Amino acid sequence: MAQPLFVDEIGSFHVGGGVLTLEGLPLRERISTPGGPVHHVDPNGEIFAGQMYVQFVRLAQPRSPLPLLMWHGGGMTGVNWETTPDGRPGWQMYFLRAGFHTYVSDAVERGRSSFAPFPQVYDDAPFFRTAREAWEETFRFGPPGSWNADPALRRPYPDLRFPAAHIEKFMAQFVPRWDGNDARTQSAYDSLIQKMDGGTIILTHSQGGNFGLTAALHAPDRVKAVISLEPSGAPDPSTSDARLVADVPHLFIWGDYLDRHEFWRRSRPAAERWRDALRLAGCEVEWIDLPARGITGNSHALMADDNSDAIAGLVLEWLERQGL
Amino acid sequence: MAQPLFVDEIGSFHVGGGVLTLEGLPLRERISTPGGPVHHVDPNGEIFAGQMYVQFVRLAQPRSPLPLLMWHGGGMTGVNWETTPDGRPGWQMYFLRAGFHTYVSDAVERGRSSFAPFPQVYDDAPFFRTAREAWEETFRFGPPGSWNADPALRRPYPDLRFPAAHIEKFMAQFVPRWDGNDARTQSAYDSLIQKMDGGTIILTHSQGGNFGLTAALHAPDRVKAVISLEPSGAPDPSTSDARLVADVPHLFIWGDYLDRHEFWRRSRPAAERWRDALRLAGCEVEWIDLPARGITGNSHALMADDNSDAIAGLVLEWLERQGL
Repeated sequence: MAQPLFVDEIGSFHVGGGVLTLEGLPLRERISTPGGPVHHVDPNGEIFAGQMYVQFVRLAQPRSPLPLLMWHGGGMTGVNWETTPDGRPGWQMYFLRAGFHTYVSDAVERGRSSFAPFPQVYDDAPFFRTAREAWEETFRFGPPGSWNADPALRRPYPDLRFPAAHIEKFMAQFVPRWDGNDARTQSAYDSLIQKMDGGTIILTHSQGGNFGLTAALHAPDRVKAVISLEPSGAPDPSTSDARLVADVPHLFIWGDYLDRHEFWRRSRPAAERWRDALRLAGCEVEWIDLPARGITGNSHALMADDNSDAIAGLVLEWLERQGL
Repeated sequence: MAQPLFVDEIGSFHVGGGVLTLEGLPLRERISTPGGPVHHVDPNGEIFAGQMYVQFVRLAQPRSPLPLLMWHGGGMTGVNWETTPDGRPGWQMYFLRAGFHTYVSDAVERGRSSFAPFPQVYDDAPFFRTAREAWEETFRFGPPGSWNADPALRRPYPDLRFPAAHIEKFMAQFVPRWDGNDARTQSAYDSLIQKMDGGTIILTHSQGGNFGLTAALHAPDRVKAVISLEPSGAPDPSTSDARLVADVPHLFIWGDYLDRHEFWRRSRPAAERWRDALRLAGCEVEWIDLPARGITGNSHALMADDNSDAIAGLVLEWLERQGL
């Protein structure tokens, strides 16, 4: 039985965004609740957009004054840090037990950050991730062609660490995403960093990677470390100066099967170029290729795989080596 | 300085919903991350829809084995239990400190519960709440006609308890809503109740009210109390039998200015009819009209008003009187 956490406060806030005005839209009718009356709705007027939700758990006796900011990947929310598809405690709980304040956010347009209307504010309709895309392309649960709507006919990688039998619980965590909100999202993350006096540690996954690496460039005095789980993008060394973050240690962690999937053959080189630029600038960079260490079968969902605590342990050991 | 909470576990899960298949949609292109390549996206295939997100905090030493389920109102998420627009701790923290496990959910289609595409699954586009609607109609911050985009020209009620200067932080909590997901939402709430062996206490706000009152009808053996903050709807006594919940105590709490707003003149009678039916059935019902107790100036956002802790205290006293 684990010891209880001593928690000082649990709460949340929104950062970033602002008021904008909708105009020229037709009136609509709405029933707000079963058994309630019809309301005439005027959709025109002031709404709020571009905000980002952040939920925090602050410990009474932290091991570090630096909070751990946990930024999820594309088409996901902060939920992927809270639990695993097979119902084990997530990385939020792991790092709370390790003694870190946690700040779990939902990127702009996702989850509790809300989204704005389209085509009035966002250009186009959102994308909904299908199970096939998750299985065969992004998360690498099986080779191309191995997804099947019938569970009995799916073919995950034989040594896969993701709990494939629970993929529906993972699908339940998916949220729609838009293409074109990167500037709004980066702005909100940068606002969060500015709000965190005393510095932070950033932990990202996938699409969150580029936002985290860029946030460090924007505030190298405030970001004390950047941990990137399989970043799907990274700053471009031809336009971003890695010397700005020469004093910020960086950790990258990669799972298995990357060379078997076109999405990753095309996406990983950006992170490799940024890694090389960081090293050239004198930055302390650790690049963990799990299969090279004999840890095979990890999917893109490193925090959901059945060895998620062991991988969190690698992150914790690295933080300890940085004196954090 | 408050004492720390002794927390056993923080986590989350999704309940309800299922897999459905999208077909016949055209291919699209998407850039997943700045600096990343263009991906060709096939939106057809299996997705998950109808699920509901539930975040829990379980205490090491609870005062009650019964968890408190906190169900938000229309166009909102569980965030409105986590904080207030002026940055005070929310009711989640109040009831944790009072010794209850808390389970804060986002209704189907809202926040971390995700939403489904329209017109493929939902019939129509979502509604986005404007500041004027919130101010003048639903939340009663000022009389009809008192909203103005210029803060200097807004006219809140003179004795309003809602922190009107912070309305933008409240607007940042709003999320879009659909009209027509009531059956999906009720089903997910009912699934949550079935998951909670040992019974629960339900605390709802506004649109959540009808779902909570109905959930008790569907599982009167599992629901040990229902607390409804200004329910915007209620079961209809002509089609629902209040005798089913005769042993389940009910508390209703109402703020100020209700008779000055058409939305509430039209919405409250449903709750009054259900209250009367409950009493006729022998159910223990407390109906707190705050102004009648000399507590004036409360808006519809009782958990966000500046006396939110005092109102939470009324709930706690009532729970204590029920032996819960």
